[in-house]
Amino acid sequence: MPQPHPLDAMLQLQPQPDGSFVAHTHAGYANMVGPYGGATAALLLHSVLQHPDCLGQPLSLTVNFAGPVQDGAMHLVPRAVRTNRSTQHWVVELRQTNASGQEEITTTATVVTAVRRATFSADAVAAPTVPAAADCPSVDVRRAMTWLQRYDWRAISGNLPSVWDDSLHPTQSQLWVRDEPPRPLDFASLAALCDVFFPRVWLRRARIVPAGTVSFTVYFHADSAQLAAQGSAHVLGQADAQALRNGFFDQTAQIWDTQGQLLATSHQIVYYKE
Amino acid sequence: MPQPHPLDAMLQLQPQPDGSFVAHTHAGYANMVGPYGGATAALLLHSVLQHPDCLGQPLSLTVNFAGPVQDGAMHLVPRAVRTNRSTQHWVVELRQTNASGQEEITTTATVVTAVRRATFSADAVAAPTVPAAADCPSVDVRRAMTWLQRYDWRAISGNLPSVWDDSLHPTQSQLWVRDEPPRPLDFASLAALCDVFFPRVWLRRARIVPAGTVSFTVYFHADSAQLAAQGSAHVLGQADAQALRNGFFDQTAQIWDTQGQLLATSHQIVYYKE
Repeated sequence: MPQPHPLDAMLQLQPQPDGSFVAHTHAGYANMVGPYGGATAALLLHSVLQHPDCLGQPLSLTVNFAGPVQDGAMHLVPRAVRTNRSTQHWVVELRQTNASGQEEITTTATVVTAVRRATFSADAVAAPTVPAAADCPSVDVRRAMTWLQRYDWRAISGNLPSVWDDSLHPTQSQLWVRDEPPRPLDFASLAALCDVFFPRVWLRRARIVPAGTVSFTVYFHADSAQLAAQGSAHVLGQADAQALRNGFFDQTAQIWDTQGQLLATSHQIVYYKE
Repeated sequence: MPQPHPLDAMLQLQPQPDGSFVAHTHAGYANMVGPYGGATAALLLHSVLQHPDCLGQPLSLTVNFAGPVQDGAMHLVPRAVRTNRSTQHWVVELRQTNASGQEEITTTATVVTAVRRATFSADAVAAPTVPAAADCPSVDVRRAMTWLQRYDWRAISGNLPSVWDDSLHPTQSQLWVRDEPPRPLDFASLAALCDVFFPRVWLRRARIVPAGTVSFTVYFHADSAQLAAQGSAHVLGQADAQALRNGFFDQTAQIWDTQGQLLATSHQIVYYKE
């Protein structure tokens, strides 16, 4: 029997009688400590989308990384707080049992789903003109942290500095990226893709300092038809920062499909040390 | 006895024995239906900052407008879900009693507060070069919706179209704005200022369509010292959109102080009809 894709294995939810779910971290998405934050964000979104009461498709997702997620079992508690005619509002908690045997909240999320209708539509920012993914150098991640190996990376610009010399740099990066092994794009994998960019402070300063996302938001512009059309091809990602200030910087990101149509836009505020 | 500023009147909270608060909508911030969303966002943030357990200063705020807020009493229920050494995570519910006498959730928020330490700091986007507020034309809002009269507006660019002719326009606006009457800037008023921009879809299409914010996020780059230095002077605001798609558009915004230093960056996803 073929193994499921690591993302699908990670997203396996065991429904509980009270409407919550149990899931487990997956070794394939391991970060330095605990799982890759984008995978956790995908899981929180997925718990809403899998809920029998869920209506529509994702419109927005905000994930707050309140404390470290430990490897092992996770308790996902999605709650529909309001259902309107065309939107639905969810609050989600990710809880883990700590050493004292008590459940504590490691992560919270809010999710809005919506039933969308065709209207006037236009992208107000154009995709940057860049070489095709096949013409961009592949990034060798074979010796990198495990979660980085879950993606196929094609570098365009604003790559990791080759010399860490404390010189100052612009904060924008562009790259092509897809799941590895390839996997048809869906809302969960798109949410995870919005978080793949290395910390902007590393680029700005050509210096590696400890950093971790505190709050992460995704606005979904794509519907399931656009995701299906994209399939497992590389998406184009661009990330930048607006301010680095006293321990926290912001990151803005755009994800375009192969046709140059926005799939999602994303924002996060990130802790950094020094 | 002098009247309090309308914002301070709106932010008056009555502590309840269970740690929640009761507040009331204020006629000075009336929108077409219910209160101005920025005022509601300010109130949700304020309920956390006034909570006796609150540590540090605001870092991020996400407000989800789940249903209409009715004029009258509001029940604010902030809950600290996790307190770390330097960050604290809050979930807040705004509830109102409906016609059936039951409490229902109209609005949810998540707030992260942080104790910040001095580090390497740099703005990665420069404030645009614009004329001083005193040299920009004042916008006459005497006949506009009430909440618009709570601000003093100085137009720079990307103003409301003078002709609504369905012609297509860029989506960026720049303006100077401050509370009216003047009021020293604080975190609550800064949160409200992040939401003052008219819907980007009106500008893009030179057409007024129904629109309303669904989810709104503010990242605070300023600390209380920077707010105090700004006092009651006009702040510089800039707003833009990235995508308008099937009933929802996103809006990005930056708020700078008089010195051109970022105070906050903000994002929202907004419903629109047609």
